Amino acid sequence: MKIAVDAMGGDFAPQVVVEGVEQARDLYPELEFDLYGLADQVTPLIKDQTRIKVINTTEMIEMGEEPVRAIRKKKDSSIVRAATAVREGQADAFFSAGNTGAILAAGLLIVGRVKGIDRPGLTSILPIANPDHPGQRFVYLDSGANAESKEKNVLQFAQLGRFYSERVLGVENPRVALLNNGAESDKGDTFHKNVHAQLAADPDVNFVGNVEGGDLLLGKADVIVSDGWTANVALKATEGTAKLMIKLIKAGVKKGGLRALLGAWLLKPMLVDIKNLMNASTYGGAVLLGLKAPVVKTHGSADPDAIRNTIGQIKQMLDSKVIDETVEYFSPTPEKVDNLTEND
Amino acid sequence: MKIAVDAMGGDFAPQVVVEGVEQARDLYPELEFDLYGLADQVTPLIKDQTRIKVINTTEMIEMGEEPVRAIRKKKDSSIVRAATAVREGQADAFFSAGNTGAILAAGLLIVGRVKGIDRPGLTSILPIANPDHPGQRFVYLDSGANAESKEKNVLQFAQLGRFYSERVLGVENPRVALLNNGAESDKGDTFHKNVHAQLAADPDVNFVGNVEGGDLLLGKADVIVSDGWTANVALKATEGTAKLMIKLIKAGVKKGGLRALLGAWLLKPMLVDIKNLMNASTYGGAVLLGLKAPVVKTHGSADPDAIRNTIGQIKQMLDSKVIDETVEYFSPTPEKVDNLTEND
Repeated sequence: MKIAVDAMGGDFAPQVVVEGVEQARDLYPELEFDLYGLADQVTPLIKDQTRIKVINTTEMIEMGEEPVRAIRKKKDSSIVRAATAVREGQADAFFSAGNTGAILAAGLLIVGRVKGIDRPGLTSILPIANPDHPGQRFVYLDSGANAESKEKNVLQFAQLGRFYSERVLGVENPRVALLNNGAESDKGDTFHKNVHAQLAADPDVNFVGNVEGGDLLLGKADVIVSDGWTANVALKATEGTAKLMIKLIKAGVKKGGLRALLGAWLLKPMLVDIKNLMNASTYGGAVLLGLKAPVVKTHGSADPDAIRNTIGQIKQMLDSKVIDETVEYFSPTPEKVDNLTEND
Repeated sequence: MKIAVDAMGGDFAPQVVVEGVEQARDLYPELEFDLYGLADQVTPLIKDQTRIKVINTTEMIEMGEEPVRAIRKKKDSSIVRAATAVREGQADAFFSAGNTGAILAAGLLIVGRVKGIDRPGLTSILPIANPDHPGQRFVYLDSGANAESKEKNVLQFAQLGRFYSERVLGVENPRVALLNNGAESDKGDTFHKNVHAQLAADPDVNFVGNVEGGDLLLGKADVIVSDGWTANVALKATEGTAKLMIKLIKAGVKKGGLRALLGAWLLKPMLVDIKNLMNASTYGGAVLLGLKAPVVKTHGSADPDAIRNTIGQIKQMLDSKVIDETVEYFSPTPEKVDNLTEND
């Protein structure tokens, strides 16, 4: 299994990327890595070149660049070259901590969609905040690949999400829910009412109904789907509030003098647990599901551990053959083609 | 100033409503209250009937009822009677802690819209989480009156929000922002891009651009507007996460033994400060802005303090004449009528 790595992506690239890749290489003997980037910067950072090859590229896509234009213009950038390697079968998956828009564009335009999928969905693996079941996670999409989604996109997200939950996370018959503005089945605008009805009618989906924005982390479902607009805003509100609470606690301790300092020291193990629980990077990166190969990004400020975890997640995706299942499910069978012809 | 109170609304009505009203009556000598509800239940709870009159009603709208149907059928319910009193000028404002949908429907269908306003917006007054400026708040709408909003609705929300911020909260030249999926001005789906452009072009609005879902409580604006769908989901995600963090801390203290208990005791003043800061009911209820009179709801589990605070907020609205300003702004002047004719 070979992973094409954008060595130049991320706030602390290439140093942190190389460190994370070396950790993952030591952990997974079956993995090989092609690191795309400025060779004279990348190569000296590698401590042990076992199963790691550097492929020189001359361009870089910066964090602020307009994604589609950058992908089209910078043919020799690390992102374009790594994605192209995956398309041409020289690697099995693509990993980057760089410009999110450029990664999404490279996934869509270079790696390519699974036939039958209209829009891939950016998929986050998020914690279920139940301290009694540490490490439980759920699948959340589309967290931001599409600012505008159609009903059929969300229905496809449900299939993509349940395959991931089942194959990669090992959840049996995953419960799928729809993010909506109320728990009752008649809630929502026209769009979400229609999606709800179609999910409820789908025999392939174990649909458990609506969840509200405040319920995301409560473990009510194994997969939560939404149009890309709503999911993006709700995820940012959730992450932002968790960070804000931690910031308020820190500020409060600082202002509270010796008493607060002592209290914080006593509570530290517990507060660290909560911080880790709420820290999404413990659980890997965000996957652009619906593509022909794993395309996975982690955030720009990821540390080597987060990069190692994300590579572990890519390995799980490859081992589980979740993409083969997706291709199979969406590929037109003679029966499906007949149906299409009838409807057209 | 007379307030028509739904004495039967809320999880602990009428007991808690009567207590809150008596607190507010003691605090504000200029306020009178008409309490609509089952007189044989309400009257015995009142300790001192000064400036409080009970008006008997025979029906009740329950929490689960379909709002519009309930409003149309239950003519002698406390909600319908109290709203009708406002429409007929027997009271200046309507307050309830009952069925949100029924309150919104009664506001819209009975109290009625200001001429020129297409859809009223449910407006929450939320905390700015800056411990250095305790008590700072911002205006957030539409947090849930409309599952589907048009562009012109959001533009009207911006006007309604800035009047409230200026008049009721005393903010000079309030900064207005749009909830969007990115901070840059080119972000968003078509709808939000269009709203952004129109807000930026409006000379009446001090528009400061987009804020993201994670920025709601950070004080980047005095008024944050959004379509009702997005604002509802983002608010629930924010509130839900804040509650979840407090729950996780409590669970962690419980599991952490004596050490954690001692730590929690030492940190208690700080944790209580954070809890209070994040507790929206400290700041009053949610106002349905765009109506001819203040229609204000608080949540069903409100305690007497929250009800007293909400009545204080209604008094501020009446004192500030914010609704007169709204009527004035949206009423057709000869000039505006000319413009309309030209465009039509």
